[in-house]
Amino acid sequence: MTELGVVRRTIARADREAVDQLARYGTATVHEAMGRVGLMKPCMRPIYPGAQVSGTAVTVLLHPGDNWMMHVAAEQIQPGDVVVAAITAACTDGYFGDLLATSFKARGARALIIEAGVRDVAVLTEMGFPVWSTCISAKGTVKATLGSVNVPVVCAGAVVHPGDAVVADDDGVVVVPAARARKVADAAAAREANEGAKRERLASGVLGLDLYGMREPLAKAGLRYLD
Amino acid sequence: MTELGVVRRTIARADREAVDQLARYGTATVHEAMGRVGLMKPCMRPIYPGAQVSGTAVTVLLHPGDNWMMHVAAEQIQPGDVVVAAITAACTDGYFGDLLATSFKARGARALIIEAGVRDVAVLTEMGFPVWSTCISAKGTVKATLGSVNVPVVCAGAVVHPGDAVVADDDGVVVVPAARARKVADAAAAREANEGAKRERLASGVLGLDLYGMREPLAKAGLRYLD
Amino acid sequence: MTELGVVRRTIARADREAVDQLARYGTATVHEAMGRVGLMKPCMRPIYPGAQVSGTAVTVLLHPGDNWMMHVAAEQIQPGDVVVAAITAACTDGYFGDLLATSFKARGARALIIEAGVRDVAVLTEMGFPVWSTCISAKGTVKATLGSVNVPVVCAGAVVHPGDAVVADDDGVVVVPAARARKVADAAAAREANEGAKRERLASGVLGLDLYGMREPLAKAGLRYLD
Amino acid sequence: MTELGVVRRTIARADREAVDQLARYGTATVHEAMGRVGLMKPCMRPIYPGAQVSGTAVTVLLHPGDNWMMHVAAEQIQPGDVVVAAITAACTDGYFGDLLATSFKARGARALIIEAGVRDVAVLTEMGFPVWSTCISAKGTVKATLGSVNVPVVCAGAVVHPGDAVVADDDGVVVVPAARARKVADAAAAREANEGAKRERLASGVLGLDLYGMREPLAKAGLRYLD
Amino acid sequence: MTELGVVRRTIARADREAVDQLARYGTATVHEAMGRVGLMKPCMRPIYPGAQVSGTAVTVLLHPGDNWMMHVAAEQIQPGDVVVAAITAACTDGYFGDLLATSFKARGARALIIEAGVRDVAVLTEMGFPVWSTCISAKGTVKATLGSVNVPVVCAGAVVHPGDAVVADDDGVVVVPAARARKVADAAAAREANEGAKRERLASGVLGLDLYGMREPLAKAGLRYLD
Amino acid sequence: MTELGVVRRTIARADREAVDQLARYGTATVHEAMGRVGLMKPCMRPIYPGAQVSGTAVTVLLHPGDNWMMHVAAEQIQPGDVVVAAITAACTDGYFGDLLATSFKARGARALIIEAGVRDVAVLTEMGFPVWSTCISAKGTVKATLGSVNVPVVCAGAVVHPGDAVVADDDGVVVVPAARARKVADAAAAREANEGAKRERLASGVLGLDLYGMREPLAKAGLRYLD
Repeated sequence: MTELGVVRRTIARADREAVDQLARYGTATVHEAMGRVGLMKPCMRPIYPGAQVSGTAVTVLLHPGDNWMMHVAAEQIQPGDVVVAAITAACTDGYFGDLLATSFKARGARALIIEAGVRDVAVLTEMGFPVWSTCISAKGTVKATLGSVNVPVVCAGAVVHPGDAVVADDDGVVVVPAARARKVADAAAAREANEGAKRERLASGVLGLDLYGMREPLAKAGLRYLD
Repeated sequence: MTELGVVRRTIARADREAVDQLARYGTATVHEAMGRVGLMKPCMRPIYPGAQVSGTAVTVLLHPGDNWMMHVAAEQIQPGDVVVAAITAACTDGYFGDLLATSFKARGARALIIEAGVRDVAVLTEMGFPVWSTCISAKGTVKATLGSVNVPVVCAGAVVHPGDAVVADDDGVVVVPAARARKVADAAAAREANEGAKRERLASGVLGLDLYGMREPLAKAGLRYLD
Repeated sequence: MTELGVVRRTIARADREAVDQLARYGTATVHEAMGRVGLMKPCMRPIYPGAQVSGTAVTVLLHPGDNWMMHVAAEQIQPGDVVVAAITAACTDGYFGDLLATSFKARGARALIIEAGVRDVAVLTEMGFPVWSTCISAKGTVKATLGSVNVPVVCAGAVVHPGDAVVADDDGVVVVPAARARKVADAAAAREANEGAKRERLASGVLGLDLYGMREPLAKAGLRYLD
Repeated sequence: MTELGVVRRTIARADREAVDQLARYGTATVHEAMGRVGLMKPCMRPIYPGAQVSGTAVTVLLHPGDNWMMHVAAEQIQPGDVVVAAITAACTDGYFGDLLATSFKARGARALIIEAGVRDVAVLTEMGFPVWSTCISAKGTVKATLGSVNVPVVCAGAVVHPGDAVVADDDGVVVVPAARARKVADAAAAREANEGAKRERLASGVLGLDLYGMREPLAKAGLRYLD
Repeated sequence: MTELGVVRRTIARADREAVDQLARYGTATVHEAMGRVGLMKPCMRPIYPGAQVSGTAVTVLLHPGDNWMMHVAAEQIQPGDVVVAAITAACTDGYFGDLLATSFKARGARALIIEAGVRDVAVLTEMGFPVWSTCISAKGTVKATLGSVNVPVVCAGAVVHPGDAVVADDDGVVVVPAARARKVADAAAAREANEGAKRERLASGVLGLDLYGMREPLAKAGLRYLD
Repeated sequence: MTELGVVRRTIARADREAVDQLARYGTATVHEAMGRVGLMKPCMRPIYPGAQVSGTAVTVLLHPGDNWMMHVAAEQIQPGDVVVAAITAACTDGYFGDLLATSFKARGARALIIEAGVRDVAVLTEMGFPVWSTCISAKGTVKATLGSVNVPVVCAGAVVHPGDAVVADDDGVVVVPAARARKVADAAAAREANEGAKRERLASGVLGLDLYGMREPLAKAGLRYLD
């Protein structure tokens, strides 16, 4: 249950191998393989281009302008985790900077996903610690009010349970429920295998209209060609 | 006429030489040379910096969350074209990814301009296929509802007729009616020639106030200097 | 007083040495050292990553779609200044391009901070002239209506008096009143010195919970750990 | 052609009777009757609820922060017209207040549609002069730069030619090309007639699933019912 | 599980009496009584002021620009329900108008909560059928792609399970998990009882500083009074 | 100086008579009379239409999601004051509801101006206590972090010093520095007197083109009339 003031220490992390494999396919393919659910809103942007990661979610629920629980979350991080931070109301403040990144990295975190702001982005880029956030702001936060760690949260429109698999790249962030990670990884692999052949044919000039057999359904739907 | 469910196969493309020349000047100069009309809204951003292109417009009108007509549009592309995609209502979905880009490129398209989302941006960047869009999203689309190809569309506030010249760079996207392409290219060339001399004088420390003779009109308008 | 139609020629610039020193610490540290005030809203973004500057403010107040006063401001620039431009209402137009940048640079300006649009960003990037703005637009402006130079302005939510110290980097823009520049630079230096030791300890795996002594106050606030 | 600095005095207004009839059906029905094109973006909101009007378009193209051409447009108004104002870039300024409304009303205008701000809304409400705008702002404008009257404009994403029929109500604003006004009015009348019977059946508890025969296509598309 | 293409017919609705009671307290009080979780984002606005309702959730997940599942949802409505509609990506289209409202009302629905657009608002207002939505748009939708009914959804940042209690008024929308409805109703009642006495004392001029005993904690936090 | 953690008890309020008089003219006229400065951004909207007030500013600076200082501010209110609340970063939370309104009203406050959210708007409307805010949200706040009372603040882009005159109506909010209140009230009165005559002439059909003598300057600027 989503509740304020609690930290859950024991969480069921998704199968590590499946999680690690998901990074390879990227968010667009994983989202399709999931059945087109689980995507965060496109307001989540990486602080630098080119990062492509996956990990198991440690979730944090924070108060506007208050990053106290980030420090509580740090202790719950295990190698291979991705921290997912939700705020109880929209906030642009910089909840996370180079000191917390140093700490998160030392604990084995692979990334931060936060529906709020982040700062010290030049240093984070240099460190190679990727963050997906809604904005960048030099403004720090206070440490005064309790939130929670490892409760279910809604981050940028997606439900995240502690332990879920999270995949992030330049296209956005997608969440895979822990219990479905293996199945989704397999489905993503199948999709990807399938795309190579299509890409070659399209590159050779074959049209999607023919490759996907769209001419008949388009005609049936009433498409008219004019000269 | 803007109508749903039709594809126009024959369109009058702007003069190729004039169109190609326009890329050289960039959108800011072309917009001025056009008489300050024809610019798309600044919500249109390139997926990577540094691209500067021009081409003749193949237009597509699509439904929210539905990219079916992109495949229909692919067949209408000729080398040197730029596809301009408008949606009947604001949508952040990723209408276009690496497979469509492969197909568009194979047909000779130079770029995509879309008032919606795009995905696979890391691959598109690697391929060097530039896109100007309102956002980036891993979310794909369905293929269920008819739109149109090569009808007049409004994309990000600018009217685009099939065949119009389109210029895009880091500053945005501008549309030049096909019939005016040659004249605008000449006017842009003249502007550019004129700017070199100005740049030198400004670099040497001459003020715009003096270079452009602004002191008198400013005084007439009532500007007061205080110490 | 904020008034339209005036140019103040004599302004009291913040202590040069203090101002120059501020760039070193960056906006996040300076904002903390200031007592957490003076930050511009996070809508202010750099046109390219990696710039980190400080300077003394020459302020400009402009009309929507009109950059006439930019030319008036150019004459008031002294080496080491940063131009801070506010508009009387939100505007996305490109108030500033490569010609003005050439002129500003020739006068010794280090950067432009503008709550509006800018253009020719590819050239500005090449020139290494950094700009923080709310957007990028190829659309130029007219030169028809008076604004003011070196009056107090509100830019992106921060009050800026002519001569104030301005610090800008990838995290945003912060304003330090001229009279406080030395004190803030010292406080920032002290903060920074202090951070090195913390960073090392966090990198070695020490938790912020222990480093900052947070366990007791968290318990007192009622934080509950569940298994 | 869209050009700055011109006023077209002779325009072909849509058939008056057809135009007047359109108000009756409202924007949702007219938009459907049009074939689902011609709608302005939903950022256009009425300054007070309950107005429902139609008229022939007198178009104005203005500069940000400058309403000079509103006065030029006033002279071109004929009884039954609706003024449609587009700005060359987004602007929140109050382009129109009670004095202009008095003048427009005296000329026979029925409403103003403006992709910008408006002011004196309490007085306009009292006068019963409806306005659809993107915002409300007390800030007035200057009168310094030429725009145009009765050129084609793009207002909130819709192309408007002088003389086109414009319909506006609490749901938004839709534009009907002058040449299609009669046909669209007839189609709207037919739609409306058809809706009365449906409404009665739905009110009696018949489901749309049955009324529209959707059960079979839903099953074919693969919809599964679970208990 | 959130999945596309399914309709769950049997759902566990929250205790009717508790649900009905919740409307009395309004969203602000219920949100506090819930422990400050469960609120939708403030982008959800009522189409007319003054409505204050509660009901049990029938959830719908829809595709951008496609309201097919609304008709499927209608059949699942029981008296006392509130329909909660989520879209797989942001969409401004008008998913719901007077015909669907007639049908929903006939089935016993009390309101619609939708993270998208709605139309025919003048008629809905007249009918007294309240809707909370992100926008108003005359643009209708297609009926082509499957979504789901009575699966868990995220609507405007809040998780909603079928059967949950939903409370909506001029301040927004709050969701109470079905299992907690009774407890939250009691807590809300207690809060409300408590507020009457406070209101009287505040009305008589007693300060919150004294009523809530804030002077000491403020002094301890370091608040300084200056003359 | 803007500083956190202080309350100034003695402030110089603008001349009462001048302040009271300003309400009569409304924000559009006062803004013009001020020389077109001092207006808050149009994101500030009244919670109900029709209120038109003026008063002397008691300022509050608050932390995101924290309304502790509202209670501190209440004690500083004197009859005829308007409370102006700024937040150190954008926040949508409901900082103010019916209990605080009861207290503010008991102290003699006329309105609240807040660049954040407000709640209990149905009750506030019934009480006739007007609020201008950026949004409405049922979400309450904590009371944990110090801000300040009666320091200079920037609210929605306008600088407000304690004691300044504030005018608010359906068109927005404008701030008049205390020292200029009398002069601005006189200028506003003069403007208003002048408008009556103009309104009558415009109502009789005289065009602004003639009333304001615009034909010649338009011709000189190059306006061309086409048939």
